[in-house]
Amino acid sequence: MKFSAIVDSLQEDLARVDARVRRAAEVEYPVLGEILSAIVSSGGKRLRPVLLLLAARAYDYDIEPLIPAAAGVEMLHTASLVHDDTIDRALLRRGQPTLNSVFNSGTVILIGDYLFAQSAILAAETMNPRVVSVFASTLADICDGQLREIFTAHRIDQTREDYERRIYGKTASLFAGAAEMGALIGNADESAVTALRAFGADVGMAFQIVDDVLDLQASTDTIGKPANLDLRQGTVTLPTMLYLSRVNGDDSHVQRVVDGNGVTDEEYSRVATLIQESGAIEEAMDAARSYVDRAVARLSIIPDREVQQQLEAFANLALHRGY
Amino acid sequence: MKFSAIVDSLQEDLARVDARVRRAAEVEYPVLGEILSAIVSSGGKRLRPVLLLLAARAYDYDIEPLIPAAAGVEMLHTASLVHDDTIDRALLRRGQPTLNSVFNSGTVILIGDYLFAQSAILAAETMNPRVVSVFASTLADICDGQLREIFTAHRIDQTREDYERRIYGKTASLFAGAAEMGALIGNADESAVTALRAFGADVGMAFQIVDDVLDLQASTDTIGKPANLDLRQGTVTLPTMLYLSRVNGDDSHVQRVVDGNGVTDEEYSRVATLIQESGAIEEAMDAARSYVDRAVARLSIIPDREVQQQLEAFANLALHRGY
Repeated sequence: MKFSAIVDSLQEDLARVDARVRRAAEVEYPVLGEILSAIVSSGGKRLRPVLLLLAARAYDYDIEPLIPAAAGVEMLHTASLVHDDTIDRALLRRGQPTLNSVFNSGTVILIGDYLFAQSAILAAETMNPRVVSVFASTLADICDGQLREIFTAHRIDQTREDYERRIYGKTASLFAGAAEMGALIGNADESAVTALRAFGADVGMAFQIVDDVLDLQASTDTIGKPANLDLRQGTVTLPTMLYLSRVNGDDSHVQRVVDGNGVTDEEYSRVATLIQESGAIEEAMDAARSYVDRAVARLSIIPDREVQQQLEAFANLALHRGY
Repeated sequence: MKFSAIVDSLQEDLARVDARVRRAAEVEYPVLGEILSAIVSSGGKRLRPVLLLLAARAYDYDIEPLIPAAAGVEMLHTASLVHDDTIDRALLRRGQPTLNSVFNSGTVILIGDYLFAQSAILAAETMNPRVVSVFASTLADICDGQLREIFTAHRIDQTREDYERRIYGKTASLFAGAAEMGALIGNADESAVTALRAFGADVGMAFQIVDDVLDLQASTDTIGKPANLDLRQGTVTLPTMLYLSRVNGDDSHVQRVVDGNGVTDEEYSRVATLIQESGAIEEAMDAARSYVDRAVARLSIIPDREVQQQLEAFANLALHRGY
């Protein structure tokens, strides 16, 4: 099953979600209004609302709280991208100029805050205290993951557990939260809520590992943002860790690149190429595949066969995506 | 009645609120943990939790949701100060070094986000959907006010309505929200909820006007942050507006200072002195006093005479405070 087929089956709900997201991003300030509208319409794949909608569809859901919840997770994702881009001082995202290319950083911080506030308003609209709780703790998990990324930057003495905890917060927590919110709104029983949350977390881990692989492999043209950004920011990801374990302590060239002082473009490319040629990429993809397998195994609890297949296809997306 | 007497009467609840705030600010990262703990313990006056507690005390409140709600408004205030200081690149706040003096701006953005997340978790703990709604829309109002401040900076062609809308968002909205949340947790009837929200808004307006007056009057020593910061940032506040209306179009000296290009310290001080000597300060204080009078008049709806007096004293604080 293709992602487009899943999206088609959710078309009506997704259209309502999109409209709700666009409405929440409306502001009065002239230039800002147009830019925000472009950001929330530029798409991305709306993976998190799709996951939330699918999780609810497996059960007996009420559509009214579902739309703001799905819009809320997408808005939370957008807000966190805005701050992420400010922190990275990124000028491109999804091939489009970011807010940083137009506004100073103070303004962009506030725009991100404003979008966080809108996502909180959307979550509150569900009037479901547990959904609001999941939403708030997910926001905290995302910040925790991003803080860990900053605090572990430029250090090659990290464990795989450090990496996993970091990407759980940064990416997997929102997949987990989206699936859990959907299950809660679907009035699923507790074991199904737990299983769907774990499914979301596993799929999110796979997505981030593949993201980290793509960052090492891709050129600026294909991913719509600068290539090897992780290396350039001193962020040590799984492929780099696996490469390090293959070089038996001969790691001074990686150390230098991760330190990041006076490193040339050629050096970044050379280390990226070494990692690619070492087999570390394949090993990282195996790790992503294990997460997907574990996620899919959790779906046996889902009573609805069609939704089960859709969620399985959703999980497999993590491994097969092009930008 | 003095503020300290109000605080004394709330001592037990406030101690629980303080403990809850401190716990919510605990993080694992070594340096950051100590700094956050210093920030949340450095005090300020805890005006917003006091207002929330008083609003609930007037009615039949349940203590369990009250503590996280009061901790939540204080945490929201702290989070917004962290981002505010990042935007202003301020190195001092309440006479203490800010996070900006220790961490880079990306880290400080995330720390602010993390504190926002903690405040949302505290609000969610009330398990009261209306409290969560007020919390979320207050966050949006704060961002709106701060964005307005940025978008109107360096412009002297602003109306008093622009100013009022801006300070409502920046400051009064959280006073309004705190009073409303307290009343909601106190199970006050709708007319009392509305009256207490309006009371909070009026008091908040008075606080911000007086803040703007103090910024023009004070020296760095007395307010614990750089003096005349508003002028230096091109923020046109009420005293400046009132001064402009007195000079009959002879405003090129103000225009130059508000523009802010190549302005010397002496020029800032000179314009601040001109504003102080013009009578604009007294007129601004009159405006603050009107807000306080209007706030106090709203208190007739409160059944409990003691709480009524405490809230009246709270409102008067806006006019009589030293730093």
